[in-house]
Amino acid sequence: MQCFQVTAESGNYPVLIGHGAWRELRSLNPQGYSSVFILTEKGIWRHWGDRFLRDSALRSARVIFVPSGEKSKSLAQVERVSSVLARAGADRKSLLVLFGGGVIGDLGGLVASTYMRGIDCVQAPTTLLGQVDSSIGGKNAVNLPAGKNLVGTFYPPRMVLADPTVLSSLSPRIFRSGLYEVVKHAILAAQPLFDLLDHHLDALQPGNRKALEAILGPAVEVKIDVVNQDEREANLRQVLNLGHTFGHALEAATGYRCFLHGESVGWGLLAIAVLAEQLGYLKLPAGTTSKARDSDAERIRDLVWRVGPLPSIRDVSARKIVKLLPRDKKTVGGEIHWVIPERIGKVRIVTGIPMAAAELAWRTLQQMPQPASRI
Amino acid sequence: MQCFQVTAESGNYPVLIGHGAWRELRSLNPQGYSSVFILTEKGIWRHWGDRFLRDSALRSARVIFVPSGEKSKSLAQVERVSSVLARAGADRKSLLVLFGGGVIGDLGGLVASTYMRGIDCVQAPTTLLGQVDSSIGGKNAVNLPAGKNLVGTFYPPRMVLADPTVLSSLSPRIFRSGLYEVVKHAILAAQPLFDLLDHHLDALQPGNRKALEAILGPAVEVKIDVVNQDEREANLRQVLNLGHTFGHALEAATGYRCFLHGESVGWGLLAIAVLAEQLGYLKLPAGTTSKARDSDAERIRDLVWRVGPLPSIRDVSARKIVKLLPRDKKTVGGEIHWVIPERIGKVRIVTGIPMAAAELAWRTLQQMPQPASRI
Repeated sequence: MQCFQVTAESGNYPVLIGHGAWRELRSLNPQGYSSVFILTEKGIWRHWGDRFLRDSALRSARVIFVPSGEKSKSLAQVERVSSVLARAGADRKSLLVLFGGGVIGDLGGLVASTYMRGIDCVQAPTTLLGQVDSSIGGKNAVNLPAGKNLVGTFYPPRMVLADPTVLSSLSPRIFRSGLYEVVKHAILAAQPLFDLLDHHLDALQPGNRKALEAILGPAVEVKIDVVNQDEREANLRQVLNLGHTFGHALEAATGYRCFLHGESVGWGLLAIAVLAEQLGYLKLPAGTTSKARDSDAERIRDLVWRVGPLPSIRDVSARKIVKLLPRDKKTVGGEIHWVIPERIGKVRIVTGIPMAAAELAWRTLQQMPQPASRI
Repeated sequence: MQCFQVTAESGNYPVLIGHGAWRELRSLNPQGYSSVFILTEKGIWRHWGDRFLRDSALRSARVIFVPSGEKSKSLAQVERVSSVLARAGADRKSLLVLFGGGVIGDLGGLVASTYMRGIDCVQAPTTLLGQVDSSIGGKNAVNLPAGKNLVGTFYPPRMVLADPTVLSSLSPRIFRSGLYEVVKHAILAAQPLFDLLDHHLDALQPGNRKALEAILGPAVEVKIDVVNQDEREANLRQVLNLGHTFGHALEAATGYRCFLHGESVGWGLLAIAVLAEQLGYLKLPAGTTSKARDSDAERIRDLVWRVGPLPSIRDVSARKIVKLLPRDKKTVGGEIHWVIPERIGKVRIVTGIPMAAAELAWRTLQQMPQPASRI
């Protein structure tokens, strides 16, 4: 079991990663709560519900199901789940356990932070994306028709419990979707994590718990380091947005229906690498020529491509993407704050990039051949 | 101009009360914001919009209207207003000014605290209820079908600006509705405020700015004192719930349609005085007999009755009220935390009061003749 500590302005909480992590719920002493609710999706609950109840010893908890998929990240679902809590007699001393992927964590985090102005919650992420990224940092949100993640709060969980065993039942596509966030963390981190991921990518399969545990810890540490320094995205936390500016535009342009969040981040990482290269930010390693096979831009793209096949972006026009870029919530006063990789392990926040450059980068990406993938 | 300071865990902010208070918005330097939005209702805006824009110098602000009435306190309205903000390009550096009564403050506070995970807001309350109570303390919420104020946050405004001039356009009924909260504060406060209110009640009319300013300050101070000691209702803040346990049940029992919030608090104060008297909590002043004309119970009831006529509760059965009591959100683990007056200036939190006693108190109240009122 690996244990990390988030120490943020809004509260401290532990992040536990490893086989048996759910047992830590026993330490929370659920008897101190007036009632316990578990928010989850039917698919994951069918697979893991019994084991979760056994490990966590939450046999008397009431289970609330949410339809799977991004469309559940809505204020309508906040209303529905809160109403279920109210009708079931949940009060301020109730505990809400979020057992699921990013959607459950985001929706449930907002419910927990607003139900009776805030009740305790525990994140038990069941997807790679959740375990490595979205469950950590206390951010939650739901979508508006006008854009993704526009309504939410900062609200720390009491603890984050990530058992990678649960990943074995993930579909390959959902699993890969999470790997793109791991790649993002590897680009942000110093060289060791990138190389580690580069070498072990093929072994990272849903059922390979050992390989997963080896990567999860260092990847989670990247996120925790950033969050501990800047919980509220005043500055540093913006770097976690790497690949998300294009990514969110892609999700919006396709009505949140064609791409999983991680897949759109995958495309976003590819696009930002192209943009960074075209604008001269992503420099070649010192001492190499422009013909060097392994420029950082290429290493980034190679790693993203190696994760697996991505749904095509052929029909998503550059014009549409560019039109949807400014709606990204990292925008301040109409500016987009681009997170631009300068090399592996170093990004820079850049404003004022011309829309024409972003459009060109997307077009260039659309015309790049997607290499034959490992899967 | 009277100035008070709220010093709470979530942030400090000034409360300014008096003619010309809106001018303080100029000190916020709205030029530091990327954009300014004003959330309001058409009725109040028609009367005061021009003067507000002139005083505040917010000529370039965009005005967003919300339908008047309690039904606007919904997650559907949070979604609508947030979508308007998003489509108008509001970002994290936008300012939301809440110009209206309790509904605008409650709805707008939740919007401000969740839009892009929190933008600045200023409370400019335009009702007596808003100026004396709901705009102060950082609490906001919307209703669920299952109960009132079940979804919300604690979120401090940047400032609260209460100009009593605006009260002159209030309908007598809306104005009186706010007076019940003033009465509540007077019951909580030490004797001077109660006596002051007792003596000046007849002069407290929408257009009598001088009388209003004399009462507003001391009444607001009661609330600020409590909030400064206990922002998150861990304990002390519960006393502000005086009259609200019955009051919320009455609102719920009548579908939030028949009683203004303050009116239900008026009935709630009457009911809790009856209950406190019947259970022996509301004691007679030392040295008086049970036949004393001016027991505190009677003084409380007299003051509430003198505010004016209340819509009848004849058709709201005690059984229905009692059934809706436990849904009050101050409930922890199924218990109701009753705020029981022991005398004017002193309340006690009591749990475990039998439902039969609450039912009897309501029935007793229903049978009391409502005295001929001053209006």
